[in-house]
Formats: sequence, structure tokens, C-alpha cells
Amino acid sequence: MAKVAFIGLGVMGYPMAAHLLHKGGHEVTVYNRTAARAEKWVAEHGGSFAATPAKAAEGKEFVFTCVGNDDDLRSVTIGPDGAFGAMEKGAVFIDNTTASAEVARELAQKAEAAGFDSLDAPVSGGQAGAENGVLTVMVGGKQSAFNRAQPVISAYARMVGLMGPAGSGQLTKMVNQICIAGLVQGLAEGLHFGSKAGLDMLKVVEVISKGAAGSWQMENRHKTMLDGKYEFGFAVDWMRKDLDICLTEADRNGAVLPVTALVDQFYKEVQAMGGRRWDTSSLLARLERK
Amino acid sequence: MAKVAFIGLGVMGYPMAAHLLHKGGHEVTVYNRTAARAEKWVAEHGGSFAATPAKAAEGKEFVFTCVGNDDDLRSVTIGPDGAFGAMEKGAVFIDNTTASAEVARELAQKAEAAGFDSLDAPVSGGQAGAENGVLTVMVGGKQSAFNRAQPVISAYARMVGLMGPAGSGQLTKMVNQICIAGLVQGLAEGLHFGSKAGLDMLKVVEVISKGAAGSWQMENRHKTMLDGKYEFGFAVDWMRKDLDICLTEADRNGAVLPVTALVDQFYKEVQAMGGRRWDTSSLLARLERK
Repeated sequence: MAKVAFIGLGVMGYPMAAHLLHKGGHEVTVYNRTAARAEKWVAEHGGSFAATPAKAAEGKEFVFTCVGNDDDLRSVTIGPDGAFGAMEKGAVFIDNTTASAEVARELAQKAEAAGFDSLDAPVSGGQAGAENGVLTVMVGGKQSAFNRAQPVISAYARMVGLMGPAGSGQLTKMVNQICIAGLVQGLAEGLHFGSKAGLDMLKVVEVISKGAAGSWQMENRHKTMLDGKYEFGFAVDWMRKDLDICLTEADRNGAVLPVTALVDQFYKEVQAMGGRRWDTSSLLARLERK
Repeated sequence: MAKVAFIGLGVMGYPMAAHLLHKGGHEVTVYNRTAARAEKWVAEHGGSFAATPAKAAEGKEFVFTCVGNDDDLRSVTIGPDGAFGAMEKGAVFIDNTTASAEVARELAQKAEAAGFDSLDAPVSGGQAGAENGVLTVMVGGKQSAFNRAQPVISAYARMVGLMGPAGSGQLTKMVNQICIAGLVQGLAEGLHFGSKAGLDMLKVVEVISKGAAGSWQMENRHKTMLDGKYEFGFAVDWMRKDLDICLTEADRNGAVLPVTALVDQFYKEVQAMGGRRWDTSSLLARLERK
């Protein structure tokens, strides 16, 4: 049992923090920008809440963040009343935000200078994965810090992998999102074509899903896509934020991502259709719009 | 045990015909445009070979074809000395070629007029699937003909599905290929980005392959892609032939396939790189070319 702070109680962070308390058995202090949500969390789960990230981080062995983007992350760590000002020597900072590799490296350097460790640890598995505590966590940082944090992270994860030095967790998450972008568009085009061709698409998916066209997305999203249900899952706004991170990093490392860039533009069209909160699979809705 | 003809002993047809003989226990007569290959097949497996498709089809209950494209298919069926001129009333014609839905419907009409049945039955699973007799077969045609042919087809298949009326097998195969085009490009961009980012890509795939980015292609092709091995599998030339069929059919039914069309152009570039016989996964080689 460790003293833990969790900063950022969004749709992901809220249940993740709860797993740290209930499943992990840790003493959890939470912070959230909108304080009412932190109060709700404490009323529901116990633990305590703090008025600032710094106060949440005080005296804690592990400090988690799960916020919106690079700016939010800088704000709650190195901004005024940020967690980094209060982190103990020897503590471990663990960031579950999907952010840039650049900010991950920057925080790792600042942490090292201040005598504590920093791990970038973005997750995949979505809201359902967070609620069920079965996320995949892609970690960048030092082996020694990973070894200490891994058992704590396991409270909300099915798989926790150390991918390399600081930033490697974020880079791995980017690979994940890049693969998904092309894959979901391919699936959307396949379902769109098959529907236009008059096929019984449930039967088609049954027959082809075990073969070379098969994917997690086909298995888990074909039914909702064919039903036109998109009010759930991983929102287009978040996907665009992630793809922006991918495309910016690709400009740095020289990777050429034509379909990722194109699909990002398609998501812009989905946003314009009113689909900012729709699931990533709503690329089909774009193809079907009249 | 039935009397069976098999026309077209390419990399797919050669082992499929052998499964009909050995696993199915059928009496098999083969025909191949290059006669030497039919002679080789008979020397290796038994059975007999015929000098023309018509002679192969004479007196047979089931006549299979597996040839290159629509033109080849018309040639061996309704061309001079084609199988249709010799098909018995009540027999079943089964075409394993990946061809257009149009030619499938045309042959089904001609078969019906002549008193026999025709099924379009393209396959997926590639050369390995054909050799191991575990193909997926997507069938279009009448239920009664399907019921009779299904046990015979099973000699080389793991899954045989009736998808709807004539042409539906081909249309289902097109859905399969459309899904694969976007999926493989997404995977190629992900692996390309991760390599440029300096990640240990085997570890990355291990961590992300069970999640939302996971696919048959990731599972079965990441290793060869990362090793730059493309001298195997489903050739780019064949994929372009299939995508041409998909895009032509989409022009008919109104489906919009932006990424499928783009990936088809990428494959054109792979052909120009000398990759006509490379596996479909060679989209990565295109991204990596200097």
C-alpha cells in the first residue's frame, strides 16, 4: 500500500483512480480542475481531495496525471501550484495522458534534476478498458522507476510494457493510433461498399473476420457501424488531438504518413457533420452522408 | 465420391485440385493452358488431364475453375472449346477465380439457360491456405446448388459461406480486399513511424497487437515487414487486379473509396520499384524507399 495522488478525473482518470484505491489498496488523494468532480469522487470512493496539484502531490510516493493535452499537462506539473514543485525526492511521477514525446522528455529531465523519476505512460483500451481496469499501458522511462511503478499501475491495467527511455511510451501510443487510422478507414470503406452492393453485411463479417481482413475494429465495431451508432467510445475530437501529435512527431523524425494525414482530414469533416463526440468508427457516417 | 474437373492449375488451383483428389476422394480431371503443368499434376497426384476445358468438363458432376481474370474465365467457359459447351444438365459449375460480379452473373444466366448451376466462389487465405486446404470460400448462387457443392468444396476449405445470389461471392471478396488495402497501409505507416522513432518494434507490436490496433495483418506480417522480406504471399500484381475490380464495381454501385483508390496508386509505385511479385505488405517498402 502506497500513498498515491491522481490528478485529472476525466472519463479515463475517474475510474483509474478508483482502481488504485479499491483494487490496489492504496491511499489515494485526487485533484481535478473542476473541484466538484473531485468531491464527487471522494463521496463515492473515499480517499481525499486536494485544492491544487501541488497539495495533492505532497508526501506521495506515486503521482499520476491523466489530463487533456500537452498544455494541461504542463499546467498541472510545472505551472503555478503544479505537482512538480511538491514532489518528494525518490517519488515516481506517472503520466497517463496521451501527449507529445517532447513534453515527456522535458518532464523527465526536470524530474531527474529535482531527484525524482518521471514515466510517460499513455494507455489504450478506451473508457471500457479504464472502467474494467484492463488498460494497456505503454511506458517510457528508466527501468528502475518502471519496476517500482509497475505493480501500482497494474491496478488498472492488463498489460504494462516498458518501451524504452522517456518518450517511448508516447511514441508507442502514436504507432497504435496511426495503425488504427488507416485500419478504421479501410473497414469503413469495406462496410460502405458491401452495403451499397446489397450484401448481408453481418454474414459478410462473419465469413471474413477470421481471415486476412480481420481486426479488433472489425470484430468490435462492425455491428455499431452498420447500425449507425456512434454515441460512445473514443471521440473524434480526441482522435484528432492524437493524430496531430503523430503528424507533428512525423515531421520531426521524417516518417511519411499519407493515409494518416488524409484520415485526419476526414475526421475534420466528421467534426463538421456534428460528430465531435462520436466514436472513431464514425468514418463510415462520413462515407454515407448524402 | 464425384466426378470432378479442375481448370486452372496456378499457385492456388494446383493444390486445391490435389485436395479434391486426396482429401475429397473424388475422381479428378485437370486442364491447364500450359499442358506441361497438367501433366506434372497428374504425374504427382494421379487422375487424368484433358486437352481442352470442354473435354475436362464432359460427364462431370462438378466443374471447377481457378484462372487469372474475367477474360481468362470467359475463355475457359464460353470461349471455343470452353467448359460450358460440354457441361451436363444438373451439374454444378464452381468458379474460384477472383473476378467481377458482372461475369459471375453472366455465367449464372448462361448456366441456368443450359440447365446446370453456376456458383461464384472466390477464396481467401492465399497460397498457404490453398496448400493446407484451409481456405475461406465466399459463394454466390442458389441455395440448392450450394448445398450440393459445399461438401465437395470443403476438401480445400475451412469455411464455406453462401453470401447471396450470383455475384455475391465476388462482392464479398471485394469487401475483404477493400478492408485489407486501408488496413495494410495503416500498419505500414505505423511500423514506418515507429522505426523512424527508434522504437523496438517487436516489443511495440507485442504490446499493441491485442488491442484496438490489432489485426490479422499485424499478427502475421509485422515480422516479415520489419525484416524487409516480401518475396512470398499475395502478389502486388494480383492485389491491383482485385482493387481494379473493386473500384470498377464501386463506380457502378456508388460507393466512395478514397483510401482504396489511393492505396491502389501506392501499389502502382511498388510495381515501378520492381515489386510486382512482392507480397501485399510491401507498402512498407514504398514508405522506406530513399
